[in-house]
Amino acid sequence: MSAQDEARRAYDTKTKPRGSLGRLEDLGCRLAEIRGFVPARLDAAIVVAAGDHGVAAEGVSAYPQEVTAQMVANFATGGAAINVLARHAGARLIVVDAGIVAPFEHELVRSVRIGPGTANIAVGPAMTEEQEARALAAGEALVDELDVDVIGLGEMGIANTTSASALTAALLDVDVALVCGRGTGLDDDGVARKVETVRRALEVNAGDPLAELGGFEIAFLAGVVLGCERRRIAVLLDGFITGAAALAAARISPSAAGVMIASHRSPEPGHALVLEALGLEPLLDLGLRLGEGSGAALALPLLHASIAILSEMATFGDAGVTDAGR
Amino acid sequence: MSAQDEARRAYDTKTKPRGSLGRLEDLGCRLAEIRGFVPARLDAAIVVAAGDHGVAAEGVSAYPQEVTAQMVANFATGGAAINVLARHAGARLIVVDAGIVAPFEHELVRSVRIGPGTANIAVGPAMTEEQEARALAAGEALVDELDVDVIGLGEMGIANTTSASALTAALLDVDVALVCGRGTGLDDDGVARKVETVRRALEVNAGDPLAELGGFEIAFLAGVVLGCERRRIAVLLDGFITGAAALAAARISPSAAGVMIASHRSPEPGHALVLEALGLEPLLDLGLRLGEGSGAALALPLLHASIAILSEMATFGDAGVTDAGR
Repeated sequence: MSAQDEARRAYDTKTKPRGSLGRLEDLGCRLAEIRGFVPARLDAAIVVAAGDHGVAAEGVSAYPQEVTAQMVANFATGGAAINVLARHAGARLIVVDAGIVAPFEHELVRSVRIGPGTANIAVGPAMTEEQEARALAAGEALVDELDVDVIGLGEMGIANTTSASALTAALLDVDVALVCGRGTGLDDDGVARKVETVRRALEVNAGDPLAELGGFEIAFLAGVVLGCERRRIAVLLDGFITGAAALAAARISPSAAGVMIASHRSPEPGHALVLEALGLEPLLDLGLRLGEGSGAALALPLLHASIAILSEMATFGDAGVTDAGR
Repeated sequence: MSAQDEARRAYDTKTKPRGSLGRLEDLGCRLAEIRGFVPARLDAAIVVAAGDHGVAAEGVSAYPQEVTAQMVANFATGGAAINVLARHAGARLIVVDAGIVAPFEHELVRSVRIGPGTANIAVGPAMTEEQEARALAAGEALVDELDVDVIGLGEMGIANTTSASALTAALLDVDVALVCGRGTGLDDDGVARKVETVRRALEVNAGDPLAELGGFEIAFLAGVVLGCERRRIAVLLDGFITGAAALAAARISPSAAGVMIASHRSPEPGHALVLEALGLEPLLDLGLRLGEGSGAALALPLLHASIAILSEMATFGDAGVTDAGR
């Protein structure tokens, strides 16, 4: 019997009407399917990768580029939203500098610097294929080291919704205007500038989408996804940018979608397209547009609950409760 | 400045784009509004009230009536879903016997027995107005004793979706067929029988809806809602039955809806009508149809997270992060 069937059968023995926990039961079955066994508990980590983007020079973000490094410092000292949310969700938080402009040295920040920010995709490729390969390999290597059941993905990088929009438009071959949204706070003019910038990026970059349109943090996170697929670890996606990274990973290894779980639906229009392409239905829909892995951290208690039901609830037999058998 | 405005202003100083945590921020503002101050943390309890229903004799449930008492025993010994979910959500669990057929004596079950199950609403009133008053008063009294920030509502009672359907149809003056669903597992014939039973109940009971169509656990939970309104404690609703109890409370005290938060949307058709009447938008939509307060327990981490963001995150000033001011 498959691990998924074993989980379904275990839910059906518990003292509750069959299937009455709805998607929570589906989630536990999915976790069993991914892991290859029914886990008794879930060890979870959230990996937040940061990178800078040359395309920030095009004025496509409401925030100046220096905010990327300031936020990495904030992650290191524990003051950001993801620090609070990961702690409350019982997840280890791993902060990775995948390539911000100026290195930030801190014992709690892993330095996997592929470069000092990507080149501006509006004028040429973001990175070389050699840099892409290094970023992917570094992401895979982190998974081997972590040895957990679930990895939530998070990111930080001023202008990275522009990179994710270009990557998504290229990978799904959809119109740029259908993909671009307000990011973390653009007005109408800002969105128009972003659409125009992404169009230019797609004109000048017709090769490997991840290398030419991605970011160091995005390629690193794609590597994390590939590592999770190899190790049968569940990947809990966050919003649009981690979704674009996951989509890029699924282009490299089509079966990678088999280890993905979508935490929430972002208001970014491109996110719905990514989720549909990956065949994922998100757990939450709360209008989150922060990134950092915040949606993954907020959904993590649902994953823990799905497994706790299997591990800790009584069966009809244990409890002497009449089973109506349906 | 109101507590709600104080919370909103505090969110706006935190190191994240304004409003980027979406409904999580609205939730924290709502909790501040309900409590009258910005809470630093939330003490939470889940109150699961159980009662039996004479209308079970009409064959309106997939389960025999004895399951109510069996499940109360299961709550007492810690084997039910709500035991697991409340523990993982960090909530105290209070189990109340509001009137099951045969008393179940256990130190962890509070006995607030209004009677040995209600009378069959298909042939006459469920309870007397004196019983209704006692149930309401007992619910209010429990709130005074608990002294927490949030109370999640839960219930157990074979056939109580029939009672909740009748109560909802009467309170909202809507057609019975629009309110009745499958409960915890009825087939088409079962639903038809339930609709017909509720029609008879509405014909023979034209007086006070809560007394004549409700249940002891439903009236008790309506009392909990009234107590929470008086004490400015947030009430976290579960599914259709707790929603019907909340609707009954809002008929007694129209401003009671001001302390309610909807945890999830149940597949029961009557639940959407109840939520609309109360002006509530649920946090989760996971196809849950168990009851017991399971949806409330699953949503509770979102409430904790909304307040933790306010209490534990750094401000732009603290962290030296540039605020784009939007």
